[in-house]
Amino acid sequence: MPVFDPIASAATRISEAREPAFVHVDDSNVAKQKLAAYMKRRGRPPNVLIYLMDDVGWGDMGCYGGGVAVGAPTPQFDRLAAQGLRLTSCYSEPTCSPSRATLLTGRVPNRHGLHRPPMYGEPGGLQGEVTIAELLGQAGYTTQAVGKWHVGENEASQPQHVGFDDFYGFLSVSDMYSEWRDPQFFPEIVYSAARTEWIKNMPFNRCFVHAKKGAAAENVEEVTIPVLSLLDEKWCAYSTAFIERMASEKKPWLLYHCTRGAHFDNYPHEKFLAKSPARHPYKDTLLELDDIIGRLTATLKATGQLEDTLIFISSDNGPHMETWPDAAYTPFRCAKGSTWEGGVRVPGILVWPGMIDAGRVSDGIFDFNDILPTLMGLAGQPERVPTDRFIDGVDQSSFLLAPDGLSNRKYHYYWLMTTFSGLRCGEYKMLLSSTSDDATDAFGTGGFTGILQRHTYPKLYNLYLDPKETHNYLTRKLSYMEAFQVGMRDHLGTFRRFPAKRVMGMAADARN
Amino acid sequence: MPVFDPIASAATRISEAREPAFVHVDDSNVAKQKLAAYMKRRGRPPNVLIYLMDDVGWGDMGCYGGGVAVGAPTPQFDRLAAQGLRLTSCYSEPTCSPSRATLLTGRVPNRHGLHRPPMYGEPGGLQGEVTIAELLGQAGYTTQAVGKWHVGENEASQPQHVGFDDFYGFLSVSDMYSEWRDPQFFPEIVYSAARTEWIKNMPFNRCFVHAKKGAAAENVEEVTIPVLSLLDEKWCAYSTAFIERMASEKKPWLLYHCTRGAHFDNYPHEKFLAKSPARHPYKDTLLELDDIIGRLTATLKATGQLEDTLIFISSDNGPHMETWPDAAYTPFRCAKGSTWEGGVRVPGILVWPGMIDAGRVSDGIFDFNDILPTLMGLAGQPERVPTDRFIDGVDQSSFLLAPDGLSNRKYHYYWLMTTFSGLRCGEYKMLLSSTSDDATDAFGTGGFTGILQRHTYPKLYNLYLDPKETHNYLTRKLSYMEAFQVGMRDHLGTFRRFPAKRVMGMAADARN
Repeated sequence: MPVFDPIASAATRISEAREPAFVHVDDSNVAKQKLAAYMKRRGRPPNVLIYLMDDVGWGDMGCYGGGVAVGAPTPQFDRLAAQGLRLTSCYSEPTCSPSRATLLTGRVPNRHGLHRPPMYGEPGGLQGEVTIAELLGQAGYTTQAVGKWHVGENEASQPQHVGFDDFYGFLSVSDMYSEWRDPQFFPEIVYSAARTEWIKNMPFNRCFVHAKKGAAAENVEEVTIPVLSLLDEKWCAYSTAFIERMASEKKPWLLYHCTRGAHFDNYPHEKFLAKSPARHPYKDTLLELDDIIGRLTATLKATGQLEDTLIFISSDNGPHMETWPDAAYTPFRCAKGSTWEGGVRVPGILVWPGMIDAGRVSDGIFDFNDILPTLMGLAGQPERVPTDRFIDGVDQSSFLLAPDGLSNRKYHYYWLMTTFSGLRCGEYKMLLSSTSDDATDAFGTGGFTGILQRHTYPKLYNLYLDPKETHNYLTRKLSYMEAFQVGMRDHLGTFRRFPAKRVMGMAADARN
Repeated sequence: MPVFDPIASAATRISEAREPAFVHVDDSNVAKQKLAAYMKRRGRPPNVLIYLMDDVGWGDMGCYGGGVAVGAPTPQFDRLAAQGLRLTSCYSEPTCSPSRATLLTGRVPNRHGLHRPPMYGEPGGLQGEVTIAELLGQAGYTTQAVGKWHVGENEASQPQHVGFDDFYGFLSVSDMYSEWRDPQFFPEIVYSAARTEWIKNMPFNRCFVHAKKGAAAENVEEVTIPVLSLLDEKWCAYSTAFIERMASEKKPWLLYHCTRGAHFDNYPHEKFLAKSPARHPYKDTLLELDDIIGRLTATLKATGQLEDTLIFISSDNGPHMETWPDAAYTPFRCAKGSTWEGGVRVPGILVWPGMIDAGRVSDGIFDFNDILPTLMGLAGQPERVPTDRFIDGVDQSSFLLAPDGLSNRKYHYYWLMTTFSGLRCGEYKMLLSSTSDDATDAFGTGGFTGILQRHTYPKLYNLYLDPKETHNYLTRKLSYMEAFQVGMRDHLGTFRRFPAKRVMGMAADARN
């Protein structure tokens, strides 16, 4: 069988509002047959469990070369990876909120408008976007969000107003609840009257909340530091109860479970405190996150739903290195906040026993924005994907379901805030702009520390021969450039017809 | 059970000529019982297969986070790792010959004297050293060396004169046979009369050889480039025949199989050419090396010897990055030639079905110099370990055989040629001298490119929180320093009683 070469092969355009996708005919036929047989057998589409962690690195799990080697064994993640498909080129966006909004909408940040995380309760979020929760809800799913939200605290952007039937979690990000009262070093300042007064006037909600579809969010409990250390436990219990309850329901379900960990500052549950070989809060938290996915999958199994549930495990971006040592591990260059691989290449494990072959590992490109069209494909309702706006995701059903299926995606596009940074095709990555991480900023220390640099000439990296992106390969592969130029031109061209969007008080700007 | 802390725990000194070792009583008892039961069952100690590759990186195999992710799947290595113990902190020396001599003698380079590889047939090698082949031979083993030697071309240092019953391979290193006649770019120079004349006068043997114990080596065939591409295939066939023949013998055996690949320049066998997803000679060669260990273990199984053979799979040092892109991959800092982790932390897989538990992964420190005392321990003849010289290796039998056994080694010592570079204990590494790899030399590009730098103050790295060695942790862990100072003092102190040695025409120098 000839090798499929994504650089030399053409992707198929199904609409001017959709990213072109590879159609692998054999894979596609197998996938359709498997799905049809599944639907016939069960009578409804699969449940979906998305387990999204915070600031966890590509290298943290044992199955990605970390685990024991970096002081935090991850037996549950490793076991799940062995039961399904482990992606080695799964891409998020460089930071939290852009990634989450991309996953929920199937669109790159320059379309959904969340170029950076909203902080301290500032308005702006998913409002006006169509989410996977909304679409699956229309398709008959019960939709549950649990844990971290952080794609808009303003009411219209809250989960219960953008498609979720129920939400139990916090609306912002872990450090917003802790940084102004961290008692570790200077309690006399942290708890001073002046600061407490200031905090009171901050517009964000200090509590984690519960909300039902269409209703106002109700406070559950203030997220003090002791509460913070219990959140992942509480949220796991909530999700476990949801899974148990759904076992006797007739409807398929979506559980979007976003952990608190392992975002700085980490205060692991006491069960895990100092239990990692590394004896550090970040690593202890990783043990906890590993244990929790173990509990959730055990509940799926105990309730007979494991074979009827697609599980996607990932992290929202690469390691946040400015907070080192409370930080993740990636073998790749740079970190969260950058479009070097260290910033955006994240773990990606897909499990669906009986439908996704066990023991698969693939370097096929998978983008967070592929989740939406893929889930609609697996739900058998691809026609529900919006047509009134551009959708960047491609349907990866055949990649997942066919034995040794190939990725349906030709390019991954790297965006650095509102700047187009580059694109990947096959094992090659062309970089036009990046965050500097040269000696001045100490190699690999931080994605937020660098300077936005526009490369004089594009750089081309071969990610197989040079996973750390240190050798520009451009002049040896000039003949490859056309594929990248065409990809870039077509992608940027879509913003002429579908103007870019910015939220959080910033003006929209299509001229990227 | 309290966590065992190697920094806080004392190692036991059994002799002033031996590296102190941890005695883990429970592990040790289990190991002794298992070994005794094995010996009773079989009546003789285990066979040993050492599969040593050249310049292959920690990150190259799938089970170490590479494989599919870096364009060369390694199903056989991954399968074997799952059947035994995968070491995440296995240490070689920074370059080829020092590592090999250390593995064969149980001693650091400053004792066996091979601080750097002998080149172009220059004299100097293992002569005068006691090798594992000699000791196992005395213990009743048939000893076979196959493939790359490169610890002395002079007769007294050749394998058949330092303990091996038989040798089939070349005495030098791959590039010595190819660099002066590489036809890829300038055949008119490479094959010029002047160069051919010069080559004729080089003292090294252009042929690979066959030798029987005590006899002169006989040429088998000149290692032209077409032959070079067949060497690993030929050597695999020789080792396969050896394994098959030994199945009906009454004696245990040692097979020291050293591959040609993946040392630059790689000319993979045509069966593998352009077969890797990366379509590059280095990656193709990795497929071949993976396939060959598969063939050797299949032969062990087919001849009923798999359960009676301890297999050790490793590489002689980290990636050689000056030859990039014909180069390996490590996630760690720097490369071959350096004492940064990238130079010396290598893959290490130990398989012995029924004796080493399957599915183990350990970050316990394992040093190439541990091979000799460990094999003598497993052979039940630890008393054969020489007492007339210092042996740096410790017996790791209980680490291997006990369920979740702990490493018996307290420190790994890093030597950079004749300079003491630093030491590791637990997850901490203290570095006094190193090869520079700062911006001037382009981070990660090469271990031979840097400058020998003596750090003004020692650096302390936490290899769990900081696997890439970018954050000096010294001032936060001053209380840990005593363990490192004591370890350094004791180690360097041994050279007063057991003077350092240098070979290859360099004077011995004890003042390191």
